[in-house]
Amino acid sequence: MEDYSVIGKRIPRIDGRVKVTGEAKYAADYAMPGMLWCKILRSPHAHARILNIDTSRAEKLPGVKAVLTGKDFNGWRWGWMPQSRDEAPLADDKVRYLAEAVAAVAAVDERTAEKATELIQVEYEELPGIFDPEEAMNDGAPKVYDHVKNNVSFEFHMNFGDVEQAFAESDLVREDRFETGRVITGYLEPPSAVALWDSSGITIWAAKQSPYFPYRHLAACFNLPLNKIRVIQPFIGGGFGGTKNDSLAGDFCACLFSKMTGKPVKFVYSMEEVLMTCRRRHNMIIHNKMGMKKDGTLTGMHSRVIADGGGHTAIGPLTMYLTGCMSTLPYKLPNFKHDAYRIFTNNPIGAAMRGHGVTHTRFAAEIQMEMMAEELGIDPLEVRLKNGISAPHKTINKVTVDSCGLIEGLETLARRPEWKDKDRKKGIEGPISHGVGISGTAYLSGARQRGHQSCGAVVRVCEDGTVNYLTGASDCGQGSDTVLVQIVAEELGLDMDSVDIKRVDTALTPCDAGSYGSRVTVLAGEAAQKAARDVRDQLARIAAEKWEVDAGDIAFKNQQVFVRSAPEKTMSFENLAKIASYAGAGAVIIGKGYSQYGLEPYDFNKGEGDAGTSYSFTSQLSEVDVDLETGFVKCSKMVIAHDCGKPLNPINVEAQNQGAAVQGLGQTLYEEFKMVRGETQNPDLRDYKMPLAPDTPDIEVIDIITDDPHGPYGAKEASEGAIVSTPPSVVSAIHDATGIWFKELPVTPEKILRALKNLPQK
Amino acid sequence: MEDYSVIGKRIPRIDGRVKVTGEAKYAADYAMPGMLWCKILRSPHAHARILNIDTSRAEKLPGVKAVLTGKDFNGWRWGWMPQSRDEAPLADDKVRYLAEAVAAVAAVDERTAEKATELIQVEYEELPGIFDPEEAMNDGAPKVYDHVKNNVSFEFHMNFGDVEQAFAESDLVREDRFETGRVITGYLEPPSAVALWDSSGITIWAAKQSPYFPYRHLAACFNLPLNKIRVIQPFIGGGFGGTKNDSLAGDFCACLFSKMTGKPVKFVYSMEEVLMTCRRRHNMIIHNKMGMKKDGTLTGMHSRVIADGGGHTAIGPLTMYLTGCMSTLPYKLPNFKHDAYRIFTNNPIGAAMRGHGVTHTRFAAEIQMEMMAEELGIDPLEVRLKNGISAPHKTINKVTVDSCGLIEGLETLARRPEWKDKDRKKGIEGPISHGVGISGTAYLSGARQRGHQSCGAVVRVCEDGTVNYLTGASDCGQGSDTVLVQIVAEELGLDMDSVDIKRVDTALTPCDAGSYGSRVTVLAGEAAQKAARDVRDQLARIAAEKWEVDAGDIAFKNQQVFVRSAPEKTMSFENLAKIASYAGAGAVIIGKGYSQYGLEPYDFNKGEGDAGTSYSFTSQLSEVDVDLETGFVKCSKMVIAHDCGKPLNPINVEAQNQGAAVQGLGQTLYEEFKMVRGETQNPDLRDYKMPLAPDTPDIEVIDIITDDPHGPYGAKEASEGAIVSTPPSVVSAIHDATGIWFKELPVTPEKILRALKNLPQK
Repeated sequence: MEDYSVIGKRIPRIDGRVKVTGEAKYAADYAMPGMLWCKILRSPHAHARILNIDTSRAEKLPGVKAVLTGKDFNGWRWGWMPQSRDEAPLADDKVRYLAEAVAAVAAVDERTAEKATELIQVEYEELPGIFDPEEAMNDGAPKVYDHVKNNVSFEFHMNFGDVEQAFAESDLVREDRFETGRVITGYLEPPSAVALWDSSGITIWAAKQSPYFPYRHLAACFNLPLNKIRVIQPFIGGGFGGTKNDSLAGDFCACLFSKMTGKPVKFVYSMEEVLMTCRRRHNMIIHNKMGMKKDGTLTGMHSRVIADGGGHTAIGPLTMYLTGCMSTLPYKLPNFKHDAYRIFTNNPIGAAMRGHGVTHTRFAAEIQMEMMAEELGIDPLEVRLKNGISAPHKTINKVTVDSCGLIEGLETLARRPEWKDKDRKKGIEGPISHGVGISGTAYLSGARQRGHQSCGAVVRVCEDGTVNYLTGASDCGQGSDTVLVQIVAEELGLDMDSVDIKRVDTALTPCDAGSYGSRVTVLAGEAAQKAARDVRDQLARIAAEKWEVDAGDIAFKNQQVFVRSAPEKTMSFENLAKIASYAGAGAVIIGKGYSQYGLEPYDFNKGEGDAGTSYSFTSQLSEVDVDLETGFVKCSKMVIAHDCGKPLNPINVEAQNQGAAVQGLGQTLYEEFKMVRGETQNPDLRDYKMPLAPDTPDIEVIDIITDDPHGPYGAKEASEGAIVSTPPSVVSAIHDATGIWFKELPVTPEKILRALKNLPQK
Repeated sequence: MEDYSVIGKRIPRIDGRVKVTGEAKYAADYAMPGMLWCKILRSPHAHARILNIDTSRAEKLPGVKAVLTGKDFNGWRWGWMPQSRDEAPLADDKVRYLAEAVAAVAAVDERTAEKATELIQVEYEELPGIFDPEEAMNDGAPKVYDHVKNNVSFEFHMNFGDVEQAFAESDLVREDRFETGRVITGYLEPPSAVALWDSSGITIWAAKQSPYFPYRHLAACFNLPLNKIRVIQPFIGGGFGGTKNDSLAGDFCACLFSKMTGKPVKFVYSMEEVLMTCRRRHNMIIHNKMGMKKDGTLTGMHSRVIADGGGHTAIGPLTMYLTGCMSTLPYKLPNFKHDAYRIFTNNPIGAAMRGHGVTHTRFAAEIQMEMMAEELGIDPLEVRLKNGISAPHKTINKVTVDSCGLIEGLETLARRPEWKDKDRKKGIEGPISHGVGISGTAYLSGARQRGHQSCGAVVRVCEDGTVNYLTGASDCGQGSDTVLVQIVAEELGLDMDSVDIKRVDTALTPCDAGSYGSRVTVLAGEAAQKAARDVRDQLARIAAEKWEVDAGDIAFKNQQVFVRSAPEKTMSFENLAKIASYAGAGAVIIGKGYSQYGLEPYDFNKGEGDAGTSYSFTSQLSEVDVDLETGFVKCSKMVIAHDCGKPLNPINVEAQNQGAAVQGLGQTLYEEFKMVRGETQNPDLRDYKMPLAPDTPDIEVIDIITDDPHGPYGAKEASEGAIVSTPPSVVSAIHDATGIWFKELPVTPEKILRALKNLPQK
């Protein structure tokens, strides 16, 4: 790594202290004089027509200030994308999933608001429900939307090369059915907000990981110009996509209640509401067909994906796009066909989650590839090395890879004792069988979307040489604020303390798309770098004038400014800031910048082109101990060789890989919503099992250093790759321990025991 | 006026509605969970040494969280200017004026905090006080600061030409002693704030008209970098200089209390505290000597000014500077000598107020010039026309006047029936004697100060074509937000509603010196114009590319963008914003700009050069009815011919002139602190008499249009000129009615009766 001062260093989180001490304020911590509480009445039916709503008893309850039903929103619908605008703030015609919001109450306190919701009388006509996406596609199945044929919410097709020809020319072709689970994003901070509508428009202090989406949704819902919408972001207790990347019934209701009452209005979802109603990762069925030559060379793949979309579209089209467009990485794949169907059901809504769209299909393809290698007698690592890509590489669907650490990552794993000695360690001790598995995966970095998706940044110099950095980028827990401050500090030659960052305020911080698609370090980072360089250029001109040298000869380092070719000419950054601020008319030094992807446009309809600015590569090894008597799996070790380009903050890269791997482990082994006719049976964190500290393996993260030309200082993403690589490596390890291939996630003890006993899976 | 869309139009105040409905939140309206109240213990002595402070009883009172005394600030001192750093947040050695802050309490509520202050026992050693500034200059007088000789806080001298020679060559030379009164700025919102100290530094929601001054003071007091100080400005209920342009004991104590307790801490001064302790206009004694030729030509002037500075220096040096440097306007004055002394006394602190420094000396000079004209038998209007300057003009002390409407203003008054028919109306009806007076004065516009005094502006385009405008400029009631939004709207061809402005937040809005010295329209306006033009340039390039024309050919008007030479090429601003935001990588359009005075540096020590970017000129006619039996003066009519260059918002210019004139009227006739040994005897708005609606004359404001090259669209100031022109015109009118020249303000009924009865003034 070059001679950087803070870039590449293990800098502690700048928000660590306030989070540990409890000083950090989250949306639920906000309170204002006269504030009302909003509570939402939810449907007891998964599919029903709303015939009548009688709010009169609720309105009469002392302390109730206003009641809303779907009609109050005048038929307005929203969706995360233009093609997905089918969700009403409160259901106004039908309820399409159980616990969908149908009415809301604003009252003087939370208890009164809740009590009032119980007094609202809703007359429903129950409708037959449909809960299985494959059944939902059948003619004659109950329809979630009357006008939607076969309940297909969105379909997406890719066809590159000729898969039939490829299969014909293959030595081995396999077809398998895989299933991925019903899991939730799993943040610990529930959605909450305080909304205030006054003559300046709407101000909402809201738990949002991408504040500019609700900003647009609120403007559209209430027909307000964007400069009258102010989304202020408190600290965020986890996002991971889905709910916090979108708007909620509570957001719209709180705003409208504030307009009606003139008071600030607050809501905090309960954890039961979160688990019953909030956006989940789509559970998917993947019919995968793969062709291989005897030597392990992949010839082609055809995947048919059916995703459970639940009652509304939300971000679903993007999910389906990602299931396919990323399937041509990380292996050379000359022929690829993809047919993806997002299906409406009367389940809660399927949406984005960390590793968006890719965890499903990559799990299927990785496992299938291993199964075929096994059939052909090829080592699972060898088959990956054989097919793995190297940069520069262009996929058949024109995905451009300019840096790739896959092979180096796999080779790193190959040298590990955990891999080299795997056969020696193999075998059964008592009831415990040991296994090792690997995977090789890719994820996109700097997701590109339609619309106004750039990141802006502003850097302001105070007269004492300290700096305010304004960004619309969102740290929802991933540590991006620290990385962005590192970038500004590095460019200006300042220490971390000299750069102050504030939370997002859409009225004041520059526009930014938000925290999704692993875009913050890459794109907000690009903007931060540009804004800081703009400041540096302005200050360099002032220093150059003073020293009568060329501005290009001025350098910034260690809180000092100096002339490169005459280092005796030096002064503190503080002093230069003072000169700029005080000399002559007094300059107000403000730098600005915004991200520019620099790549070709991509074709959303064909699945062609770059959906990211760059791509990360993860090679993962997992070790498990399977208890053959109980079916219990203990994952004891993970080695994650992750190529995030150049790690700008290795401690953060390590933490993100660890977090993603543990989240992935939960989805591989434990996490699953139990559903009965659309009703979530385990809507609490006792019964919905996320991994806890004792479940966490020893995780070793190895940075595979590449230098990507598209990210600042060569950086790529580090937050999502390991959630893609974990499920196949763990399932491969379970196979190694048991000899059984599991194709359905999660791989629970029950499934393992049934398989070991050759009983049919339930 | 050119073909502007919103500039020059009588646009209603954008903050009018929220102020009328009560929606606007002022600092005292802020409340936070867990908030403590701060109350201040004040000295019962005007001059005393603090021997001991026992806070133990206060600390034991239930509900008290912390107590502060002067020692807690470690000897730190502040002042508005570098040369004036002599004030401690809480007095730690001596108290130098009555009711100076000596200790403070933070408690769970206001009553407990107040009660606790009464339990603090302070042991004082009373010292002899000095209350008369002239006496204070004598050797042997009690000393306010031990090291300050003759209690001279600051002295300022100018000497241009040769006044002695001028007097020798004059036909008439007069010497008079004038006195201006002890008056307060008179805002109705008391100083208040809520302060929060957490690990991000200090955040304070404070009633400040120039937030960047307390921003610097707090950083200095607590040794924090500027990027850790966040002054957030609520709506401000009047400023007028002095207190709200500076920091207060309450500010420092609330911040330190918050650090000590971890809680937000609030204070609201009572109106008694305001009137007893807050900064006042300096009362001054002006010994004026003027020479005149027989034909009325001014030959020279020598003024000796003694100002009552009270116990600390505050902004005093600037006040003294302004008493002199502005005396060479608005009349040709070939020889000028000025000796100004600011004197420490044990009175409350003298500081800035609207018409800063100029009301005093201009009153003296105007009245003296009339007295001399009377002696020489010259019409008071004629003597002004004879001596009045025209642009371009450079004074003997190098004040550059590039636009001047004085002569046109005076000629306008000359044509008025109130002036032409004055002799016909003259005479006594019953006890009422009618009189008419005029004045011709000047004030500076766009005050220039040392330090980082530029104004910055940022304009951001939302993707729907609405705009966020970020400014550090402060509307403290004068209507400047409306004018600044007009500028942004005009430059972008938008309507007013499309431009949103937020209150100042020093962490997010660009640096700005604040609301003083009539700088906002001129300097923050220049910055707003530049930032908007920066946006326009960026958008024009995008439109030009689309239409394949030159960017210089693109125009913005009526929410439309079009090609000047091919007007059929047109689209809405909204559409262009969308194209910019959505096309390609998606631009984040942010414009920035800052003010640059463009004039030569000035010499603060010599009183040479331009203290403003430009100068306004006010010609005023006032009519009075004096009741010769009671001495009561009713001012019935004012005609104010004000040259503010080009009025950007004539309704605002009118309102500002009206407000300044009424405030000036109060200081001419009613307002006066009654002092007994440093104690203010009338610290309430019943006994300290400000003009009320029935006291308000019919005020006609006539815009004298000039086109100043230094202000945006040719604008100059409109907020301060009429407070300078009112006292001399009203006093001249009283002379016209009574034949008596009053040289001491205010001219109370008692003074008039005594003069009419030839009794000595008390």
